[in-house]
Amino acid sequence: MEKVRVGFIGYGCRGKEMMKTLLNMCENATVAAVCDAYPDRADEAYNAVLEKTGKAPFKTTNADEIINMKDLDAVLIFAAWESHVPIAVAAMESGKYVGVEVGGAYSVDDCRRLVETYEKTGVPCMMLENCCYGVKELSVLKMVREGLFGTVVHCSGGYHHDLREEIAGGNINRHYRLRNYLSRNCENYPTHELGPIAKVLNINRGNRMVSLVSVASRSCGMEEYIKKHAEKYPDLQGLPFKQGDIVNTVITCADGATILLTLDTTLPRSYSRAFTVRGTAAAYQGLNDSLFIDGVHSEAFSNPEDLYWGNGKEYREKYTHPLWEKYGEKAKAAGHDGMDYMVLSAFFEAVLKKTQTPIDVYDAAAWMCITPLSEESIKKGGAPVAIPDFTGGKWKTPKKSPDLEFTLDW
Amino acid sequence: MEKVRVGFIGYGCRGKEMMKTLLNMCENATVAAVCDAYPDRADEAYNAVLEKTGKAPFKTTNADEIINMKDLDAVLIFAAWESHVPIAVAAMESGKYVGVEVGGAYSVDDCRRLVETYEKTGVPCMMLENCCYGVKELSVLKMVREGLFGTVVHCSGGYHHDLREEIAGGNINRHYRLRNYLSRNCENYPTHELGPIAKVLNINRGNRMVSLVSVASRSCGMEEYIKKHAEKYPDLQGLPFKQGDIVNTVITCADGATILLTLDTTLPRSYSRAFTVRGTAAAYQGLNDSLFIDGVHSEAFSNPEDLYWGNGKEYREKYTHPLWEKYGEKAKAAGHDGMDYMVLSAFFEAVLKKTQTPIDVYDAAAWMCITPLSEESIKKGGAPVAIPDFTGGKWKTPKKSPDLEFTLDW
Repeated sequence: MEKVRVGFIGYGCRGKEMMKTLLNMCENATVAAVCDAYPDRADEAYNAVLEKTGKAPFKTTNADEIINMKDLDAVLIFAAWESHVPIAVAAMESGKYVGVEVGGAYSVDDCRRLVETYEKTGVPCMMLENCCYGVKELSVLKMVREGLFGTVVHCSGGYHHDLREEIAGGNINRHYRLRNYLSRNCENYPTHELGPIAKVLNINRGNRMVSLVSVASRSCGMEEYIKKHAEKYPDLQGLPFKQGDIVNTVITCADGATILLTLDTTLPRSYSRAFTVRGTAAAYQGLNDSLFIDGVHSEAFSNPEDLYWGNGKEYREKYTHPLWEKYGEKAKAAGHDGMDYMVLSAFFEAVLKKTQTPIDVYDAAAWMCITPLSEESIKKGGAPVAIPDFTGGKWKTPKKSPDLEFTLDW
Repeated sequence: MEKVRVGFIGYGCRGKEMMKTLLNMCENATVAAVCDAYPDRADEAYNAVLEKTGKAPFKTTNADEIINMKDLDAVLIFAAWESHVPIAVAAMESGKYVGVEVGGAYSVDDCRRLVETYEKTGVPCMMLENCCYGVKELSVLKMVREGLFGTVVHCSGGYHHDLREEIAGGNINRHYRLRNYLSRNCENYPTHELGPIAKVLNINRGNRMVSLVSVASRSCGMEEYIKKHAEKYPDLQGLPFKQGDIVNTVITCADGATILLTLDTTLPRSYSRAFTVRGTAAAYQGLNDSLFIDGVHSEAFSNPEDLYWGNGKEYREKYTHPLWEKYGEKAKAAGHDGMDYMVLSAFFEAVLKKTQTPIDVYDAAAWMCITPLSEESIKKGGAPVAIPDFTGGKWKTPKKSPDLEFTLDW
């Protein structure tokens, strides 16, 4: 079996998860090199590969050494947010496919650099947006494609994840979120919901995002949390956090559909991505995993839960996406709701077949630019900000091939 | 027993509901006069009062005749949205307490007129925002007042009610929503959620709303619905609706808290007001009636419903608002979740005692102005628009008395 030779950069929390899935599940990839800026983490990555495969990978703390290697097919980037674009650009320039972990950009220019580098080199760059492959997201996408929703008018979702402990622990666990939450105020993590929504709304494939407004609440969650746990975080007492607790961003698309994204990471709550799709014929609400079909379900004034609340599962059985039909069992066995296995498989298949990746550099640029543009809008009191067209007009062409496809028939 | 002598204006759908509650439940009020611009509806109102009480009320199709009556204590306005402010102003000028059904304003000047008339005449004007008295809203308010939520940072909610049939039927049922949906694009019905949220955030009582941004999706729901039901609505075929299907409005308050309001009335869905309060110590989500308390409930990655989903009821028993403790049983017997009885009782009590109403003219102005300001923001592509201070600086004084109080001890 031909194998993708991978350089693996970044072995923090997310890197470890993805390494595990890669080593355990992806027979078509081999980790030839590992890198982390922290020597102890580079050692850990090295040991993980050696233990699992019996083969010692090349090891370094300098990402450039990975980029400069000659016998690598692809680079996977799980390092800090700030390093995503520089490493991705360097890797494309060195001819290596790029798979980059999710995150927002720091400037629109960074997004342009990604696109320009791809157009110059022809080397694909895929954002590894695992949530595009979620079982709920893909089955709703299938329903949308089959017309169940009628015209899609509005979508919403967000990253609703109480990260206070992770952020406050940044000086101990060396997590880049701490410095970002201290110094920035923006929709810093837009893609977990924007990715699946962009697929539903055909962004860059017949539609595009044209403008946004973004408003941040005040920032109280982190400071109160740190004060409450004073013994645990003595060095953070009284430090002001710039990141607002809740950031709402409303995006308008070329076809008039709107997208509401909510960043919600520093207040107590349960995890949710609240993936929601609203059409003229149906509604899906991720918060309670419920599908409302016009003419099938009926509106109830006080007791909607009796009628269809939580019926998403039932419909997923009817509208199983082909990818989940074929690979669902294996994906679930890989953990993290099966999404990581799916997204890695899609990436490795593109590398092996030397094809375009199902999430391409234009997707990455469009999704990542929401972060700096939201920062600008927030600074201007919520003023509307134009979203650039990174495709040079190519967004107007509807895509014909299936969504997010991969076949695994290597 | 002393009774409030009421002039009742507007006998459409909402007027009928409120008349029923008034006649059946409110011993302290008597309907002395009825009015509707449509003669058949004025007749219906007349007959309803006569049948229930044995006494014939004065009847007219001209609201001015109600305004000019000498022996009325109060006017209740359930007529079309467009008439709320003109009738309220005229009634205050004639010395009658005003109870006005919910709705948005058509201009900021209209809101100013309400306030100026009150300040000139000293006659109170209460928006009958029944949702302020909802059992969920009031118990969450009690939790907030007792500190359970810590610092409140963000609230959200909206009017999520599929009204397509009512709107399309406007030429038959003579509902003012039809002409409004054809001609306007705005957050046209902000107060059902904004009212309770304003109480939580102490708006006009130590806090105020300072600016908003508002973005509307395209308008597809009504036109597709009318096309689908062509035989039922032949006169509406092909008419363009101006009102966007989903309108998201983000309001920023003086203390930095934010409010997200969503108008959602022309796409299939179940009813919800999705009243949501987010603090540094707890979260309440109305969509699934769930309360998450920091340190009590734990975040779960994939299966939050197992842990606390739908636990709101349990906490309402612990945090029953005094109004619901005292009058809950009677209120529920009156129908419409008990809210109508509560709001009418609060109004009649203020009239009888000649006191200020618990929802006052400054509340009405602040809540109603969201409609024209959202219209302006939408027209300007989501640009931020300043929200006026209608209190002349008095908003800075925290209110000391309890919330939304009434005693019923007449």
